[in-house]
Amino acid sequence: MSVYKVVELVGTSEESFEAAAKAAVETASKTLRDLRIAEIDSMDMQIEDGKIVTYRTKVKVSFKFEGS
Amino acid sequence: MSVYKVVELVGTSEESFEAAAKAAVETASKTLRDLRIAEIDSMDMQIEDGKIVTYRTKVKVSFKFEGS
Amino acid sequence: MSVYKVVELVGTSEESFEAAAKAAVETASKTLRDLRIAEIDSMDMQIEDGKIVTYRTKVKVSFKFEGS
Amino acid sequence: MSVYKVVELVGTSEESFEAAAKAAVETASKTLRDLRIAEIDSMDMQIEDGKIVTYRTKVKVSFKFEGS
Amino acid sequence: MSVYKVVELVGTSEESFEAAAKAAVETASKTLRDLRIAEIDSMDMQIEDGKIVTYRTKVKVSFKFEGS
Amino acid sequence: MSVYKVVELVGTSEESFEAAAKAAVETASKTLRDLRIAEIDSMDMQIEDGKIVTYRTKVKVSFKFEGS
Amino acid sequence: MSVYKVVELVGTSEESFEAAAKAAVETASKTLRDLRIAEIDSMDMQIEDGKIVTYRTKVKVSFKFEGS
Amino acid sequence: MSVYKVVELVGTSEESFEAAAKAAVETASKTLRDLRIAEIDSMDMQIEDGKIVTYRTKVKVSFKFEGS
Amino acid sequence: MSVYKVVELVGTSEESFEAAAKAAVETASKTLRDLRIAEIDSMDMQIEDGKIVTYRTKVKVSFKFEGS
Amino acid sequence: MSVYKVVELVGTSEESFEAAAKAAVETASKTLRDLRIAEIDSMDMQIEDGKIVTYRTKVKVSFKFEGS
Amino acid sequence: MSVYKVVELVGTSEESFEAAAKAAVETASKTLRDLRIAEIDSMDMQIEDGKIVTYRTKVKVSFKFEGS
Amino acid sequence: MSVYKVVELVGTSEESFEAAAKAAVETASKTLRDLRIAEIDSMDMQIEDGKIVTYRTKVKVSFKFEGS
Repeated sequence: MSVYKVVELVGTSEESFEAAAKAAVETASKTLRDLRIAEIDSMDMQIEDGKIVTYRTKVKVSFKFEGS
Repeated sequence: MSVYKVVELVGTSEESFEAAAKAAVETASKTLRDLRIAEIDSMDMQIEDGKIVTYRTKVKVSFKFEGS
Repeated sequence: MSVYKVVELVGTSEESFEAAAKAAVETASKTLRDLRIAEIDSMDMQIEDGKIVTYRTKVKVSFKFEGS
Repeated sequence: MSVYKVVELVGTSEESFEAAAKAAVETASKTLRDLRIAEIDSMDMQIEDGKIVTYRTKVKVSFKFEGS
Repeated sequence: MSVYKVVELVGTSEESFEAAAKAAVETASKTLRDLRIAEIDSMDMQIEDGKIVTYRTKVKVSFKFEGS
Repeated sequence: MSVYKVVELVGTSEESFEAAAKAAVETASKTLRDLRIAEIDSMDMQIEDGKIVTYRTKVKVSFKFEGS
Repeated sequence: MSVYKVVELVGTSEESFEAAAKAAVETASKTLRDLRIAEIDSMDMQIEDGKIVTYRTKVKVSFKFEGS
Repeated sequence: MSVYKVVELVGTSEESFEAAAKAAVETASKTLRDLRIAEIDSMDMQIEDGKIVTYRTKVKVSFKFEGS
Repeated sequence: MSVYKVVELVGTSEESFEAAAKAAVETASKTLRDLRIAEIDSMDMQIEDGKIVTYRTKVKVSFKFEGS
Repeated sequence: MSVYKVVELVGTSEESFEAAAKAAVETASKTLRDLRIAEIDSMDMQIEDGKIVTYRTKVKVSFKFEGS
Repeated sequence: MSVYKVVELVGTSEESFEAAAKAAVETASKTLRDLRIAEIDSMDMQIEDGKIVTYRTKVKVSFKFEGS
Repeated sequence: MSVYKVVELVGTSEESFEAAAKAAVETASKTLRDLRIAEIDSMDMQIEDGKIVTYRTKVKVSFKFEGS
């Protein structure tokens, strides 16, 4: 039977929480094989001069574990 | 005075968490009367070949309770 | 061995949180058989013109499950 | 896209938490179509004369929602 | 569209948790406009000589926000 | 400086959650010295024949600790 | 060294959770100086006639504290 | 009406989480009268040389309280 | 009977979490009357070049409420 | 003094939650040195045709950290 | 195999949270045998005249259980 | 836009929780680039012969993610 690993990533975007989540998933998919699920853990926004400048989404991504 | 029931639904969408929440609310509204509030409980994304293919939003929907 | 189902209800009352909980339990008992336990999940109050007008108590009620 | 419903059930068994979870799932499968996932929510044990007499497992079972 | 603010208050009473919540809401309504909802956050009791002398209810009160 | 101990008690009453909390505090005060605070941890109700027959309040009571 | 204050606001929008969050942040920025971070606390939707009519996002906004 | 006390115990076993819970309950029943319910609080495993050597189950056991 | 307000502050320090908490309390005491309790909510550290440069402590401070 | 790292793994089994936890621990022990503790984080079951086909146990495993 | 008991204590100190935790552990060690672990549960500070006068640390202490 | 990874580490120290957190951060900084924030997750103390012998602080450290 399989074993999966779960890692916690924070994606960022100037546009939306979903774009931030997508950035995290796509960066992860470059080095992690067989990504299956990404759960939203938390979301926040950085503000400058009263404007939202960055959306940040923390996700827990699970993928097949083969050691390390 | 009124009594309300709260049910937990998971909507899915290929586009966004909000479209997923909307799917859950609209499906619920076909059979449940007097829906009032839908609270977001959690959100996740299914991934295939490194791409997000489905957005899932779990909501708690409350509506007027008349037995069952 | 038995199986139980747990449903989430919100009772309302103009008088107290306990009257609100009682409303939820008594409405439930009209259609659900063999209610056993109702756990308090949360409580809030609606306010109008600086006065509390409704007490709301969310309860989790468990009862014998026979399908549906 | 699909919509799923999540219901909370408590299975009981004289033998183990897993047998209690199984009782909940199998009773649910008689009336609910397309069960997919059952998450363990909590577990407790009833004790009589210093002995464990019943194992109880509360599960959250999700299945395809088609109204009600 | 409107923006609301949520503040956390602790009301006290010699008689009951509901009287304590009411004290918090009524004090708040003197200076905060358009109170809508007060959620119960927690409750405790102060004890002296083995007797309950004060009931304390912490509530989260929301009201229309117009700056500060 | 002082050290305090916190114990968890469940009081019961046929009338209200506050009477249940009071039962726990007064029973505790017979054997525990210098009770100070009792925090409400959770509340539930036992139901028979569709009626609430017992209110139960779980409290965390703190008192001066002098060993054991 | 600096001290920051955290306040809880609920923004509303007819369009999306992000527009609701933005409403809260922009209203806050009119009277609060040096906003830095807004964390998403919870989200819900108001429903009328089976349609989502308002998105609400509760945010915790932190800013420089200079008394009051 | 009765008052109950809740104590937190950690049972250990070389075989399973249930055997660990049973160890806690049976040890408790030697000195505590009228045990009723044991809720599972958490579970962990001690590992040596890559093998699970001990299962530990933390339970909250409630029993009739008669002082101390 | 009295009513208290609870506000959330983040103190910072180059030296320790306690100095950070103290900074929050002392800044608060300049404008808020009758501070009573400050509960630690969370703590984090800012890191630069592999070194901890700032300790941050989030506290919930309660004080006598007299409107606003 | 030592530093430990904690990683989150999901083991799977056709037989039991404990076999699923064991699968995670044994796969981890092939590449991670000096595993000490594995805490149970959550458990769920995959269901097909009304039968439980896979047990999944999410564990947090700690081991000696030597960089990366 | 062994069984452990977990008790909740609040230590106090005029100097620091660690001195408060130490006070709780050392008082406990006078009457409880084989203390092993003390987990920090929460921390708060009592304030008088705008100054921190007492640090309080709530700890959960586990020790070998031999009845009562 | 950037993506960050969050890892969970436990630092240990014979002296204080802050020294334990510092140990975790400094060990991490040897192999992880661009550490930004370390959040305190939990703290405990190991006890021998009634004395605190080790402070342990679990931190969540975030840093720039570039795969792996």
